[in-house]
Amino acid sequence: MVDINADLGESFGAYKIGNDENIIPLISSANIACGFHGSDPMVMDKTIKLAKKYNVKIGAHPGFPDLIGFGRRKMECSPLEIRNYIIYQIAALDGFCKVNNVRLHHVKPHGALYNMAANNEEMARAICEAVYDYNKNLYVVGLSGSKFIEIAKEIGLNSYNEVFADRAYEDDGSLVSRNKEGALIKDEEIALKRVKQMVNEARVETINGKIIPIKADTICVHGDGSKALEFVKAIRKTLNMD
Amino acid sequence: MVDINADLGESFGAYKIGNDENIIPLISSANIACGFHGSDPMVMDKTIKLAKKYNVKIGAHPGFPDLIGFGRRKMECSPLEIRNYIIYQIAALDGFCKVNNVRLHHVKPHGALYNMAANNEEMARAICEAVYDYNKNLYVVGLSGSKFIEIAKEIGLNSYNEVFADRAYEDDGSLVSRNKEGALIKDEEIALKRVKQMVNEARVETINGKIIPIKADTICVHGDGSKALEFVKAIRKTLNMD
Amino acid sequence: MVDINADLGESFGAYKIGNDENIIPLISSANIACGFHGSDPMVMDKTIKLAKKYNVKIGAHPGFPDLIGFGRRKMECSPLEIRNYIIYQIAALDGFCKVNNVRLHHVKPHGALYNMAANNEEMARAICEAVYDYNKNLYVVGLSGSKFIEIAKEIGLNSYNEVFADRAYEDDGSLVSRNKEGALIKDEEIALKRVKQMVNEARVETINGKIIPIKADTICVHGDGSKALEFVKAIRKTLNMD
Amino acid sequence: MVDINADLGESFGAYKIGNDENIIPLISSANIACGFHGSDPMVMDKTIKLAKKYNVKIGAHPGFPDLIGFGRRKMECSPLEIRNYIIYQIAALDGFCKVNNVRLHHVKPHGALYNMAANNEEMARAICEAVYDYNKNLYVVGLSGSKFIEIAKEIGLNSYNEVFADRAYEDDGSLVSRNKEGALIKDEEIALKRVKQMVNEARVETINGKIIPIKADTICVHGDGSKALEFVKAIRKTLNMD
Repeated sequence: MVDINADLGESFGAYKIGNDENIIPLISSANIACGFHGSDPMVMDKTIKLAKKYNVKIGAHPGFPDLIGFGRRKMECSPLEIRNYIIYQIAALDGFCKVNNVRLHHVKPHGALYNMAANNEEMARAICEAVYDYNKNLYVVGLSGSKFIEIAKEIGLNSYNEVFADRAYEDDGSLVSRNKEGALIKDEEIALKRVKQMVNEARVETINGKIIPIKADTICVHGDGSKALEFVKAIRKTLNMD
Repeated sequence: MVDINADLGESFGAYKIGNDENIIPLISSANIACGFHGSDPMVMDKTIKLAKKYNVKIGAHPGFPDLIGFGRRKMECSPLEIRNYIIYQIAALDGFCKVNNVRLHHVKPHGALYNMAANNEEMARAICEAVYDYNKNLYVVGLSGSKFIEIAKEIGLNSYNEVFADRAYEDDGSLVSRNKEGALIKDEEIALKRVKQMVNEARVETINGKIIPIKADTICVHGDGSKALEFVKAIRKTLNMD
Repeated sequence: MVDINADLGESFGAYKIGNDENIIPLISSANIACGFHGSDPMVMDKTIKLAKKYNVKIGAHPGFPDLIGFGRRKMECSPLEIRNYIIYQIAALDGFCKVNNVRLHHVKPHGALYNMAANNEEMARAICEAVYDYNKNLYVVGLSGSKFIEIAKEIGLNSYNEVFADRAYEDDGSLVSRNKEGALIKDEEIALKRVKQMVNEARVETINGKIIPIKADTICVHGDGSKALEFVKAIRKTLNMD
Repeated sequence: MVDINADLGESFGAYKIGNDENIIPLISSANIACGFHGSDPMVMDKTIKLAKKYNVKIGAHPGFPDLIGFGRRKMECSPLEIRNYIIYQIAALDGFCKVNNVRLHHVKPHGALYNMAANNEEMARAICEAVYDYNKNLYVVGLSGSKFIEIAKEIGLNSYNEVFADRAYEDDGSLVSRNKEGALIKDEEIALKRVKQMVNEARVETINGKIIPIKADTICVHGDGSKALEFVKAIRKTLNMD
């Protein structure tokens, strides 16, 4: 059965983001922020406990050291900086796994790091090697069919091809930039149809109307707002997951 | 033989502190900062590699999240905050141990955290429990004879009683506050004599002239400046360590 | 007429706190965070524009450099550190006043800084002197009848005695600690009666049942949640402010 | 006479960078960091006092919010983010000018911000408009002949064309990237000859041997290390400045 993942544990101090308690019963994998772009030690411990309670797979969700930009802004870092930022963040989260007696399962880069890793081989390699060196049994999650997935395989890491229910694709399988019209699939019926097609038929229609192959190991969902939760429930229903 | 420890890896980004390359051949234990009061992922990786090269015992040196104050200012944190800050920092450093195939050996709280843990039972307990829950085989390093050492034993952790060559002691075995006259032992001859007495006879003369018992498992030294390095060499000679 | 103030502009990057758009029409003074315990340059500019639109008095709301603790944790800073943290934050906010053609009116310390300044003369003096040296025409806002207000007068600053509608008072006029039972006045009817008494009769009943004098130049209100907004409206009605 | 400028006040908390006390007698303009890529309120106040003592022109030296990278890494920020980061930093530094009774004279972007502004019109405009809106009498300092200087003029700001004694130039007047061989002029005699040529003849030889025109209103110097100081003294002598 296809995996469903969401980014959790992104709150910071007095600042709350997301709807972790409500989305977690609907997913199978949680990507937990590690304190660079979001989260803090209190949030990490609490989120690991929540993931343990709902028995979802636990992933580290490392990002750029840019709290004010929530890790969404590209930063010009060297491969060695990227490597060390990844090790630091994975290990910190793994510490909370350890004290809570759960196992870290995967790593999914966050935000600008995710996007850069999808098509920048050097960065993809820095991330994948960091993961491998830390624990070669960890999975990585990345954009379906991307350079990142390719490098992970080359290095010897298991990977999940990730697809998005609410995002349009270019002909080369990359995501349509959020700045471009049509980047977001706003019609829920269309989105659900696309999810079904990606999961069951391994193909999707691009923004230009072309049909391209796409591998869907995991679907990324969001839990912000009641509408988002309803959409996740609809995805589960569409895929006969309940 | 008595252990000699120093705080290393406190540089941050473009900012350099300390003289790690020169002090490390003279010590047996390195306490490495973990990114809260000092250090960063690049510095941590580099310092672990240095410690590995010189085969010194590797310790985590966690501090308050106060980079601008270098972790030297007391902060009013809850025991749960302290616990989670400690787990986060130990685990992050342990990640670099893991990728460099070395073993984390001990934990020594830094700065204000060290001082508060020495006589605040609640804080001492929060720190020791965090260490124990993360890895019960780790040692802790704390002020000789302090509440922190007492709590560590109670919890079941091995500990190192730490003494200072250049600091005066109160009658109760606590350090004389740096604000008080006579807090620092500036005469090198006297300092060396005191070190010898602490290590070989397990006693020390307090600032009031009283002789008190003191346990010296490890001596804290500093590497800033050529004078400091000479002093460490003199300590080693005094104790017939070379 | 009594002033009503609220703490605004506490969001940070992707993190939203508060309900600024809805509370601002109900208040006469806005205390805007300055980037240390909360807020950032984007939020500061946006909040100044909002304050300008609703024609409320603009205040700087400086705090400790503790974003992860939202400035609510005591930190052991020197008077000179406090002074410089205050100047930095006031001036930064004043920059956004300048480019938006509005005038900075007052300064209200935030969180732990507010509480410490209320009874620590050294800290109160450091804050007030910083404000005075930056611009001696600025007002300060502090706990009614506190050491902070006293020092402000001594130095030559105008001040607002602040009262709280939802907090209990000790016999000496200090706020009952949040950790103590009865610290928060939860019954709205009682809270409104207390506000009326403080504003119109300049006295309040303490947690021990004693009646003490209290000066109410400004009332602190909150805008989080619809219930809080209703409470502010009730205060305005009780005081015949609309 | 040509201006000589240096970046000062880049220390942070316990971390010291630079040699401010020794370089300042040799320069006419100080660019002072503002707390984003380096510096803090204590350092800013101290550096302003130093600049006042030596009667040098005071400039704000704002950078990206990237302390760990010292503002040297490109970040993908929107023009509005840049604008607000600039206003925040200029105003914060100006606060210390105000309490020390000195006048802020200019603004020079730091590191990656400087480099990006040199050829990115949108970013140059965001910076210059922020400076203009804050105080249209401030000067800006930027790469000689760059887009930044052009935009400053267009907006109505006075500007200083900055040249570098120790950097090679491309044929288009941009600096040769530090990653390229020959980027740094290491031979002091050659460097001095180039300075003389730039200042007195308004031209320079590029890395490709071409002679191009260059305007030298100010020369950037560094004070790190005794060798650097000697070089600045040699520049002054070469230009008959003493």
